[in-house]
Amino acid sequence: MNKHLGPVEPTAEAIGTLRPVSAVRLDPGGLLGGWQRRNADATLPHCVEQLTAHGNLDNLRRITGDADGEFRGFWFADTDVHKTLEAAFWSGAAPEFADEVAALLEKAQDPDGYLDSYYQDPANRAKQWGELHFSHEMYTAGHLIQAAVAAARSAPDSPPAQQVVAVARRFADLLVRRYAQSSEVDGHPEVETALAELYRVTGHRPYLDLAKQFVEKRGHGVLGEGRFGPRYYQDHEPLRRADEVTGHVVRQVYLLAGAVDVAVETGDHELLAAAIRLWDSALSSRTYLTGGQGSRHRDEAYGDPYELPPDRAYAETCAAIGNFQLAWRLLLATGDVKYADEMERVLHNGIAGSTADDGTAFFYSNPLQLRTGHDGSHEDAPSQRLTWYSCACCPPNLARLMASLHAYVATSDPEGLQIHLYGSGTVTDGPRAVEVDTRYPWDEQITVTVTASPAGPWTIALRVPAWCADLRLTVNGTPSPARGQVQDGYLRLHRVWQPGDQIGLTLVMPARLVAAHPRVDAVRGAVAVVRGPVVYCLEQAGVPDGTLLEDLRLDTSAPLSVAFHTTGIAPVTVRVPVRTLVDQAQAPLYRDVAAAPDGPPGPAATVTAIPYFRWANRAPGAMRVWIPLAAPEG
Amino acid sequence: MNKHLGPVEPTAEAIGTLRPVSAVRLDPGGLLGGWQRRNADATLPHCVEQLTAHGNLDNLRRITGDADGEFRGFWFADTDVHKTLEAAFWSGAAPEFADEVAALLEKAQDPDGYLDSYYQDPANRAKQWGELHFSHEMYTAGHLIQAAVAAARSAPDSPPAQQVVAVARRFADLLVRRYAQSSEVDGHPEVETALAELYRVTGHRPYLDLAKQFVEKRGHGVLGEGRFGPRYYQDHEPLRRADEVTGHVVRQVYLLAGAVDVAVETGDHELLAAAIRLWDSALSSRTYLTGGQGSRHRDEAYGDPYELPPDRAYAETCAAIGNFQLAWRLLLATGDVKYADEMERVLHNGIAGSTADDGTAFFYSNPLQLRTGHDGSHEDAPSQRLTWYSCACCPPNLARLMASLHAYVATSDPEGLQIHLYGSGTVTDGPRAVEVDTRYPWDEQITVTVTASPAGPWTIALRVPAWCADLRLTVNGTPSPARGQVQDGYLRLHRVWQPGDQIGLTLVMPARLVAAHPRVDAVRGAVAVVRGPVVYCLEQAGVPDGTLLEDLRLDTSAPLSVAFHTTGIAPVTVRVPVRTLVDQAQAPLYRDVAAAPDGPPGPAATVTAIPYFRWANRAPGAMRVWIPLAAPEG
Repeated sequence: MNKHLGPVEPTAEAIGTLRPVSAVRLDPGGLLGGWQRRNADATLPHCVEQLTAHGNLDNLRRITGDADGEFRGFWFADTDVHKTLEAAFWSGAAPEFADEVAALLEKAQDPDGYLDSYYQDPANRAKQWGELHFSHEMYTAGHLIQAAVAAARSAPDSPPAQQVVAVARRFADLLVRRYAQSSEVDGHPEVETALAELYRVTGHRPYLDLAKQFVEKRGHGVLGEGRFGPRYYQDHEPLRRADEVTGHVVRQVYLLAGAVDVAVETGDHELLAAAIRLWDSALSSRTYLTGGQGSRHRDEAYGDPYELPPDRAYAETCAAIGNFQLAWRLLLATGDVKYADEMERVLHNGIAGSTADDGTAFFYSNPLQLRTGHDGSHEDAPSQRLTWYSCACCPPNLARLMASLHAYVATSDPEGLQIHLYGSGTVTDGPRAVEVDTRYPWDEQITVTVTASPAGPWTIALRVPAWCADLRLTVNGTPSPARGQVQDGYLRLHRVWQPGDQIGLTLVMPARLVAAHPRVDAVRGAVAVVRGPVVYCLEQAGVPDGTLLEDLRLDTSAPLSVAFHTTGIAPVTVRVPVRTLVDQAQAPLYRDVAAAPDGPPGPAATVTAIPYFRWANRAPGAMRVWIPLAAPEG
Repeated sequence: MNKHLGPVEPTAEAIGTLRPVSAVRLDPGGLLGGWQRRNADATLPHCVEQLTAHGNLDNLRRITGDADGEFRGFWFADTDVHKTLEAAFWSGAAPEFADEVAALLEKAQDPDGYLDSYYQDPANRAKQWGELHFSHEMYTAGHLIQAAVAAARSAPDSPPAQQVVAVARRFADLLVRRYAQSSEVDGHPEVETALAELYRVTGHRPYLDLAKQFVEKRGHGVLGEGRFGPRYYQDHEPLRRADEVTGHVVRQVYLLAGAVDVAVETGDHELLAAAIRLWDSALSSRTYLTGGQGSRHRDEAYGDPYELPPDRAYAETCAAIGNFQLAWRLLLATGDVKYADEMERVLHNGIAGSTADDGTAFFYSNPLQLRTGHDGSHEDAPSQRLTWYSCACCPPNLARLMASLHAYVATSDPEGLQIHLYGSGTVTDGPRAVEVDTRYPWDEQITVTVTASPAGPWTIALRVPAWCADLRLTVNGTPSPARGQVQDGYLRLHRVWQPGDQIGLTLVMPARLVAAHPRVDAVRGAVAVVRGPVVYCLEQAGVPDGTLLEDLRLDTSAPLSVAFHTTGIAPVTVRVPVRTLVDQAQAPLYRDVAAAPDGPPGPAATVTAIPYFRWANRAPGAMRVWIPLAAPEG
């Protein structure tokens, strides 16, 4: 067994190709490690502050008699506390908060194990367990349990960790007593993966059995119509039989994460295949170029196939996080590189873009376009990141993900180590250890140095991203043919390794133009600029005065060029040749093509594309990932 | 004064260029008259049935003690009764219903004039007038008043009409007593136009003053944040100062209709100019090709400028109706042909498309595209028209519009008569009368015969639609140069007319390709087929088996051709040359342009476009108005 390191720790009996490694440290000077440090230094303290300011902690203190006033926020406001607590445990960065909350949760818990400060309110007691389609009670239990799992794995001997584990187990035991013989499920999945993880931590089989039951019972119309119909919460059809993702994206991906956990722990290949099938359905027609999912604001839902509007992309931050966590589970289960590719994409774009440079403001929805004249007056679609939200699920979700980010970069199998995400740091797995040194994704060069090695040959596998068309390799300074050693998406170097051995991998990163499937109507006639895993965008702030972003057309007759910087908005920008349409402000909304054909492509210019994840850190204004193509001249 | 004929009857003192005419009859054999007959024969009885089935009438009977059970439906369910009653009065087609409802309303009304069966429920009494941002109480009063206006104008001497007028006046008088000194307004405009109209019927000035006050007080943040912020209900800025439409579309256009009524009756040119400015802002960047408005499902709202997704077009039926009614008011006030052009467009597309062939099923939202694989399981975006909706505002709104449709086709001014909408029938205004004979919009030919004429010369003005590039004219069989007699969008024929004089107008109607403004990202690289005022669409039902609608590309190298039919889906269809993309099902969602350029345009074929307003009357399936262009060959 590996030491407990991060989320998702399948048991030795689980189906699985890859396993988490026992220790990873990310260098705070790199991009990934820098995000992790910013999270500990800024985001986590910010979340703690906001939980105080918005009453989440007082909601619990009302139950213990230590605060007065009304319940504040959404009825599932406890989950923001639990997610922040989970982040505190993974990072070890907020020990006072962890101590205080552990004690508060223990004190607030009912004797039977129930713990939900909204439904413990005397005004709402009578509704306990009575409106599961809506109440999020098990969703709340799930996040409590996930905090406990983090506690158990990161600080098993600490008193607050033991306290939280005990509280979570009491709630989980209550769920087992109450629902083991029931056909009810919660309207918002989350408890499934939490119970499976709690089983992994405790070995207590009833938790896993209950997780399995929740996965199985859902899909039989047990939740009623609700406001948006049964498909909204994936209750229209059992997951095992479903062919495509549907409804509320976060519900769908959390459910899939739980299903994968159950499938691997119970050896249920059919269920695992169903999860893979659904993942494929999302990736083939319902995923943004940033890895975001969710095309509709109305119900925070997937749209129809190929319905991917960049301006109205919902692409909720929590959905991106859920997808990252789901892809990790599928990667462990199958070893298929496509899941690691997707983790990289969504991490560097959909997830990274949700947090402001300073780590204390966030997007909830993550559009790929903001129009000139955008009405950003409502938190549903603000023009810039906000410090908090009335439904604040995303910021603490980011905190717990970033706090555990190191756990997702590498795996092991009997052959050796696999590196999936590239960031400077060290990876240790038993007798094997390597050091990774890179400025990826800005730089093409990754250096992996062996720092500990057992006797005998073993394999270091380095992911070759699907976007990479050209790579180069040196081993101890000697060039080696790279492509021939790539197998199933990984450069697999099998040999006797000595401490000090050094691998030099170059993933050549030109700026590329990417187009969408012809059925994606919303971006027809437009392309996106991508370099390595990083999607780029144009902002009004980077366009000459007097020109609207909307009137630029990418000129494919001239080349893109990559520019490197030591200061400024990003280490790497891309210079994009454009033509500027003129006199568009007064043009009619519709015109006869015969009477008014397309005008000439307009004057030539060059504008600077920046990484999408850095948008909205300058002046507020229009932004777009997809750039319309200029009509060919003449 | 004209005889009372239809909605909007400005007083003699009002600002105005044109006036309603005293009598119009539409021939049920024509398209407009056929819609009106279908409305009387099918839609109106259907609405009456549904009001019974869904408890709207019983809601009122609970208040009179004539029914038991719970209040059913939305809290403003009374308005569906009022709108149906208005339709009954305009059409004269459901006298028993009018009798019964008039008596029921009188009996249900509180002694002080209050009448709202939701807030008269003992459970809700305490909330009366206490949640105006949300309650729709004045919106409900407004629809009651509009029914009374219809009663007063269409059947002033009938007992049920007098009964409804008395009930409405008592409610209006209560509003005057309660709100004349207040700064409060209702969250949903409607009462403004209703009160102005009631003033027109009664001459009682306090109604107009209160309407004006509601228009003026709105926009000062008097409604609070609500769920979607103040812009949702146009409370962020006084209408008089606003530059662009915003928020919930029906609220915006109903407010504008009320503002125009107030402006013309009070001689307020500034307010009228503001309404025109807002109308222009909607038409220049926030209106669909069908005349529909509302780009967002979430809050039934306008989007940002040029945000016009065809698949997620909300384009609510009630918004289209409201816009038609608003354009009529602006036409009367200004005489500007653009309003009549817009009435024609929205009537023949956005409005007409909302009703099924048989008149008993309806769309609430009116998309311009339905995708293959569309999830139509929820009434928010069904694949076909539904017989009723949980919020059933649209069907009875259609009923009242269609019942009064004849009132919108012509106007008079001191010079003579103006014909704005073309349908077979007769138009009478005092001593002047003409008969219109046409199969418009299927046929290009319109014959206008003078049937009564005063002595001396006068002008018959016939609208020349903006889409019309070529017209021909005969007078008593003799060709006459047409273009030279067109002035400000009307063919103006000034002479001494004799009964029997005949005008032959030909509005040449080729099938045309229309493109959108380059900033409308959602339909870039696509065109729409339009003939005359009618927008066409492709349906999967008209595409060869084995080909997906999504994979067709319009081939501009071959001509469109118009086909005429005596049976089938429509009298006129358009044959559209296309290329068919092949092997798209397995293509990746994103691809490097350099590695995988566009394929060849695929095999050629021809498919049939049908009028948009006839869509979803065959098999359910994909539909699209905007057809992507094939890439040029080679």
